[in-house]
Amino acid sequence: MKISEMISQEMEVSPEEATFLDACIPIKNFKKGDILLREGQVANNCYFTIQGCVRQYYLSDGDEHTTAFFIEEQSIASMTSYLNRTPASHFLECVEDCTLAVLNFDKEKELYDRYPKYESLCRMSMEEDFGKQQERMAKFITSSPEKRYLDLLEYQPGLMNRVPQYVLASYLGVKPESLSRIRKRVAQKG
Amino acid sequence: MKISEMISQEMEVSPEEATFLDACIPIKNFKKGDILLREGQVANNCYFTIQGCVRQYYLSDGDEHTTAFFIEEQSIASMTSYLNRTPASHFLECVEDCTLAVLNFDKEKELYDRYPKYESLCRMSMEEDFGKQQERMAKFITSSPEKRYLDLLEYQPGLMNRVPQYVLASYLGVKPESLSRIRKRVAQKG
Repeated sequence: MKISEMISQEMEVSPEEATFLDACIPIKNFKKGDILLREGQVANNCYFTIQGCVRQYYLSDGDEHTTAFFIEEQSIASMTSYLNRTPASHFLECVEDCTLAVLNFDKEKELYDRYPKYESLCRMSMEEDFGKQQERMAKFITSSPEKRYLDLLEYQPGLMNRVPQYVLASYLGVKPESLSRIRKRVAQKG
Repeated sequence: MKISEMISQEMEVSPEEATFLDACIPIKNFKKGDILLREGQVANNCYFTIQGCVRQYYLSDGDEHTTAFFIEEQSIASMTSYLNRTPASHFLECVEDCTLAVLNFDKEKELYDRYPKYESLCRMSMEEDFGKQQERMAKFITSSPEKRYLDLLEYQPGLMNRVPQYVLASYLGVKPESLSRIRKRVAQKG
């Protein structure tokens, strides 16, 4: 599968444009455990997840804190590092074998210069992601750990079987023991 | 002050463009306590804060949960509601008298059609805001309440004197009593 074939399912893509897109946004395969970005590196790429699951985590006092998952149809961007060309403060790791469309920082500029309509598309996609991020942040602040777990079951049920439990626990902001207790409580209720 | 005057400090704005901008993005004054958006309403406007402080909060079981503050130079967008024309799940309230630039949903489209460079500017500003939101989310998940308080002191010290303590407590994800204890502990440490 090439990126031009995926895009042409949504809108018209001329042959010349297709050639440019495929050179500009290659689709690459990664193995489970591959690190896409390390703390301290500048993020040179954004990604779009075609298949697989990537997690974002921070190292703090030797502990990994998982702060985001990205699965099929989701964009992966370490935005502050990518935009400002500054070292990232987190890691991006493939939780499974992954197939990702890779957009390089320099290529992105080239793409927008040549085909401004993609800047428009990216703005809209960015706004949508931003909205989801706002909602997630609000949900996280306003919810108890148990409510966060129930939301995960409701909105991202696939994650439960794709991600180790201790990683899920850190994503929910609790210790693994607490997640076990929450699971038992929820199972008893429901 | 008009929006065209503010923008012309950063880039060239033709007289015709200035007239359009000022009609498209009026600057309005709001009073402390004014509600910009209610839960259940569709967000028809985005804002840019020229002066003042706006808070975003959710009502849950009768309790207000503050999830964001917006001060000078920050954009205010209830993105999911604004983009999808769906009812918002939160409130936006002026914590102080505010001066805000107001961009209406329909006007935004008109602006981009007429002057595409503003779409480019908005994309870049959106990406920057998105990056900050990502960092804030990660910080919130990975930090203890005390660390969140210390970060607030370091990165948003102005908020301490501008916002009631019970509102700050909810923003930090703790009860007001816990915030008092944290403040005392931090003060003792020096």
